Amino acid sequence: MTAHAIAVDVGGTEIKAALVAVGEDGARPLHRLRRPTPRGPDGGATADRVVDAVVEVVTALRGAGPADAVGVVVPGIVDESRGVGVYSANLGWRDVPLRDRIAARIDLPLGFGHDVRAGGLAEARLGAARGMRDAVVLPIGTGIAAALVLDGRVHAASGHAGEIGHVDVGHGEPCPCGGTGCVEAVASSAAVARRYTARTGTAVGGAAEVAEAVRTGDPGARAVWAEAVDALARGLLVLTAVIAPEGFVLGGGLARAGRLLTDPLRERLDELLAAHHRRPRLELAELGDTAGCLGAALLATEGLKTP
Amino acid sequence: MTAHAIAVDVGGTEIKAALVAVGEDGARPLHRLRRPTPRGPDGGATADRVVDAVVEVVTALRGAGPADAVGVVVPGIVDESRGVGVYSANLGWRDVPLRDRIAARIDLPLGFGHDVRAGGLAEARLGAARGMRDAVVLPIGTGIAAALVLDGRVHAASGHAGEIGHVDVGHGEPCPCGGTGCVEAVASSAAVARRYTARTGTAVGGAAEVAEAVRTGDPGARAVWAEAVDALARGLLVLTAVIAPEGFVLGGGLARAGRLLTDPLRERLDELLAAHHRRPRLELAELGDTAGCLGAALLATEGLKTP
Repeated sequence: MTAHAIAVDVGGTEIKAALVAVGEDGARPLHRLRRPTPRGPDGGATADRVVDAVVEVVTALRGAGPADAVGVVVPGIVDESRGVGVYSANLGWRDVPLRDRIAARIDLPLGFGHDVRAGGLAEARLGAARGMRDAVVLPIGTGIAAALVLDGRVHAASGHAGEIGHVDVGHGEPCPCGGTGCVEAVASSAAVARRYTARTGTAVGGAAEVAEAVRTGDPGARAVWAEAVDALARGLLVLTAVIAPEGFVLGGGLARAGRLLTDPLRERLDELLAAHHRRPRLELAELGDTAGCLGAALLATEGLKTP
Repeated sequence: MTAHAIAVDVGGTEIKAALVAVGEDGARPLHRLRRPTPRGPDGGATADRVVDAVVEVVTALRGAGPADAVGVVVPGIVDESRGVGVYSANLGWRDVPLRDRIAARIDLPLGFGHDVRAGGLAEARLGAARGMRDAVVLPIGTGIAAALVLDGRVHAASGHAGEIGHVDVGHGEPCPCGGTGCVEAVASSAAVARRYTARTGTAVGGAAEVAEAVRTGDPGARAVWAEAVDALARGLLVLTAVIAPEGFVLGGGLARAGRLLTDPLRERLDELLAAHHRRPRLELAELGDTAGCLGAALLATEGLKTP
């Protein structure tokens, strides 16, 4: 049976929304909408405007066809069990009961979740982690978080699980979080760009340009890239020891480099793995920046099955 | 309703078994048996003799009263889903289909599992992790493994999850596993005893004697203890970042030191935790060395509920 969900992925700069047909065989966006994420003078006002904008896109997409449910995902620290946006560094809000505030203004069942975990759920059901019993999905962008999909379900732990970006893997560099050696201080796409500029004096628009420089043999780019790969491999090693997933799915900006990332990462991880470790698969994400939106659609329709 | 399970915990030196009454309100051993774990000339022969011994204690305990099911737990790397003892360094076996071999010789439903994970399940249902939604149970003995009890279920990942003992936390000391900086190279009870002797030249019978020396102000003991606490705190920090459990339950030999362990560990962990981390509870295990046996009883009776 196919259900129709209105899925809304609230990002730091843009709200992506779609009317999605969710069936046994997959999920298909029928109609898409994008809006800039509104901002207020502070986090509370931003939350108010985001709630308004979510209601507006839901109303607009209801014009595109019948819908059975709505799913909304937001960034930052999110407590799914209470339906609360606990904290977003980017949007500035703290402890906003977003689920209840949105639910009060729409007359459809509402699923609510976290963008990264919902995207991980989508990769597990519809994308590169399909068929893996336990998978860790890592979007590597400004930061590095992980969605832990264990036995087909996302482990959220009141919103705090999967903080692999701030595990100390020993490289010794300081991180804006106050720690040192954090994976994302060296391996996030933001860090790759920043460290390349610091090393070479050449300004770049992002990690994609550093990847291009690696391809052309730029020694500074190669060094920064190798350090990112090493930190990331050490992060995956920690996840392998603790979680032992069947595989990792790499997404986000840095994973657009494709095999330029996964080939050396596979090699470095294999060097680090001991005999007692499970050898995980490494895959590139398949759903790109629609993962969050498709995950929101899954959250919406899963609610329909709950008695 | 109360079910009766014959529970067998196969250890490296001893088999602990009991007839256990498992009800809604808890589990109560009615009758206990202990046997030395038999050994053969190699791992295969040891496995044969262990299977014989398990069948023998099950038969003996059936004489003590009616039983509805049998639960058996074994050490090492265990794949519960296939019922296989993948590897035991201590008992020497590799890839032995223990579950099927035992099931063929008893005419009761059989639950099969891993000693540490079953013990974790018992602490979660009956002991110190009762009421925690997500908990990590760590027996600290010769090595350090962790049972991850997530949303009330044990995450096994084909037997490889919870290897926190071999995560590199940066102290730089070599580990018998071939790595460096492993938590258990400094923080296991075996490491505490070994490192105290190496530092002071004084032989000790185990970590309990080092704990006693800490209490009397022995500076060598204090230094070794502080290093163990630091490594353990860094291991808990990694688990907090990745899993974000409500709490940790510490068991095994080292945890017999009680607050001599948990007080400085709490302090060190609080120093290491950043604002974005969940602050976990720290508890001492309640079930002692019966945890594995009670966990085996739970595995036995859970099988009875499966359709």
